[in-house]
Amino acid sequence: MSFLTSTIPLIQAPMASAQGPELAIAVCRAGGLGSLPAAMLTPDRLREQIAAIRQATGAPFNVNFFCHAEPEPNPEVETRWRARLAPYYAEAEMDPSAIPAGPVRAPFNEALCAVIEETPPAVVSFHFGLPSAGLLSRVKATGALVLSSATTVAEARWLEQNGADAIIAQGREAGGHRGMFLSDDIDAQPGLIALLPQVRDAVRTPVVAAGGIGDGRGIAAAFALGADAVQIGTAYLRTPEATISPMHRAALASARDDATRLTNVFTGRPARGLVNRFVAEVGPMCEDAPQFPLAAGAAAPLRAAAEKLGSGDFSPLWAGEAAALARDEGAEALTRRLWADGQAVMSGLSRRWKD
Amino acid sequence: MSFLTSTIPLIQAPMASAQGPELAIAVCRAGGLGSLPAAMLTPDRLREQIAAIRQATGAPFNVNFFCHAEPEPNPEVETRWRARLAPYYAEAEMDPSAIPAGPVRAPFNEALCAVIEETPPAVVSFHFGLPSAGLLSRVKATGALVLSSATTVAEARWLEQNGADAIIAQGREAGGHRGMFLSDDIDAQPGLIALLPQVRDAVRTPVVAAGGIGDGRGIAAAFALGADAVQIGTAYLRTPEATISPMHRAALASARDDATRLTNVFTGRPARGLVNRFVAEVGPMCEDAPQFPLAAGAAAPLRAAAEKLGSGDFSPLWAGEAAALARDEGAEALTRRLWADGQAVMSGLSRRWKD
Repeated sequence: MSFLTSTIPLIQAPMASAQGPELAIAVCRAGGLGSLPAAMLTPDRLREQIAAIRQATGAPFNVNFFCHAEPEPNPEVETRWRARLAPYYAEAEMDPSAIPAGPVRAPFNEALCAVIEETPPAVVSFHFGLPSAGLLSRVKATGALVLSSATTVAEARWLEQNGADAIIAQGREAGGHRGMFLSDDIDAQPGLIALLPQVRDAVRTPVVAAGGIGDGRGIAAAFALGADAVQIGTAYLRTPEATISPMHRAALASARDDATRLTNVFTGRPARGLVNRFVAEVGPMCEDAPQFPLAAGAAAPLRAAAEKLGSGDFSPLWAGEAAALARDEGAEALTRRLWADGQAVMSGLSRRWKD
Repeated sequence: MSFLTSTIPLIQAPMASAQGPELAIAVCRAGGLGSLPAAMLTPDRLREQIAAIRQATGAPFNVNFFCHAEPEPNPEVETRWRARLAPYYAEAEMDPSAIPAGPVRAPFNEALCAVIEETPPAVVSFHFGLPSAGLLSRVKATGALVLSSATTVAEARWLEQNGADAIIAQGREAGGHRGMFLSDDIDAQPGLIALLPQVRDAVRTPVVAAGGIGDGRGIAAAFALGADAVQIGTAYLRTPEATISPMHRAALASARDDATRLTNVFTGRPARGLVNRFVAEVGPMCEDAPQFPLAAGAAAPLRAAAEKLGSGDFSPLWAGEAAALARDEGAEALTRRLWADGQAVMSGLSRRWKD
């Protein structure tokens, strides 16, 4: 049995901007732990979306927050970034001075914490470390299990020492934002097959495997490496419950193993996505990008303009390295299949290689 | 059972400059597939070392060759490289004009092929693709099983189409040189947990897992992902049979999960090793480094001078991302333990997660 109260030890990775409550509900119905990404929600929207999940299912679910330090806008950096993007504004016949602020990514705060206290989910997970000790103890007082992501053994140890109840070992293969918070060197993050057993040996908390897992084989591998549960993201982007653009969906359907890169051009923090024109020309990593999440402001209108013309050239096409293992499938059926396949691989293994 | 004729489906990774026949013999005695790295051997030395293995064991073994294209020395590039290293020559009070050519790394050729024909091993493996069709067919005519490494699905397909009998899926975690040959973009190589199932689905040949595997958990994970055999390198560097320097041995004993990088400063091709002064200051990747293997010439005397003073600051400290999972142990005992532990993990898995 798992440390999670869900029926099966699979967590659907929270994916801000790519899903709402519908995906979480479908996963919960299959017995997995559905997740609601709250990184881009106001307190009111968060309250509504939690209510929507509760109305649909009595199963446990997870609410995920970012807990980055909010950066001071730096006019010099912002000017350099807009200058770097100027040729694209010109190409899109856009007035750079008229560009509004980008979508909000507020870190976990008092107001969001109050919503969690009103209506506590079974699990609360954080990305980029943990919130302040004060906020964290309020979350823990609700009885919620607190998870956060580690990209190195050092981060896993830090999270355990600072109050995480379980640690997500996020391998380099993972799509979307790295959870990294003790280093900004993207080459420090090991691949999951090396990271997971080392995290397992370093902490006493349960460990969740994440990154590059796309089917039953990856699930079985994660348990072999010492995981107590498995978190899967990219495979759920192919479900009808995901709210991604048609361009993102099409890119995922033709994804290759070698087609993703870690890039900071969309938000200022490294995140893994499929290479498109914006990543190739401005990134993958660009020193001119403002600190997370400020880079998103200047880049967002280029995306909107391109998408209006049916192009994904400026869209974040988040994907992990196992994207090509996914197929179009409903989220409830996918969850059941993933777990059944994982179990089948595990029982087949011992038959094949018995002493 | 495995496609290999060894008793157990574990291959000791061939590690040029780090081992001779002794390591291969010990692994063969335990029932694994021992490997002899021939990338830095003359035909005469190769003949001697093969004879040493045959004298010690009747078990099958593997001989490994590099098959890079030999680059034309480029005086301009060489001058730039020596200029980049000038401060280090000065620090070591070394006359740059007196620096001899570095250790030879000859690609597989007529003379080496003739040795294989004289005394064919059960397995011949190549790194950096495959040799010419003519040489390859001579190797295959000896009855040897031919292996080569793929770092992407595209490379796996290419190797299958061009005559490899089995493909080593080398994950990004692997220590030492990348086998990459269709691309020189080090960020194209996925982590093993994502790469292996995608290679498995793309080719019909047997697939060997390599990269970031350091104990029974990694072995079980590799089989879960679809491997037919597992190749392990770094763990064998901790055995007394390995011929590495005391500095390399000490660095491995205190290795951390986040301490390796891909670097081209030692040979001109990207290889994974622990970060030391040379990697940190000149690399990890340096555009001034001449093509493989020419970069090694100018860097070698700095290494020799530093090692004479007991310092590993300029030595290649090859290591994969799972280096910290290894311990000091004899190669025969290590091989038996790895396989016993892998089997135990596999049988434990199905008990824990049965339907």
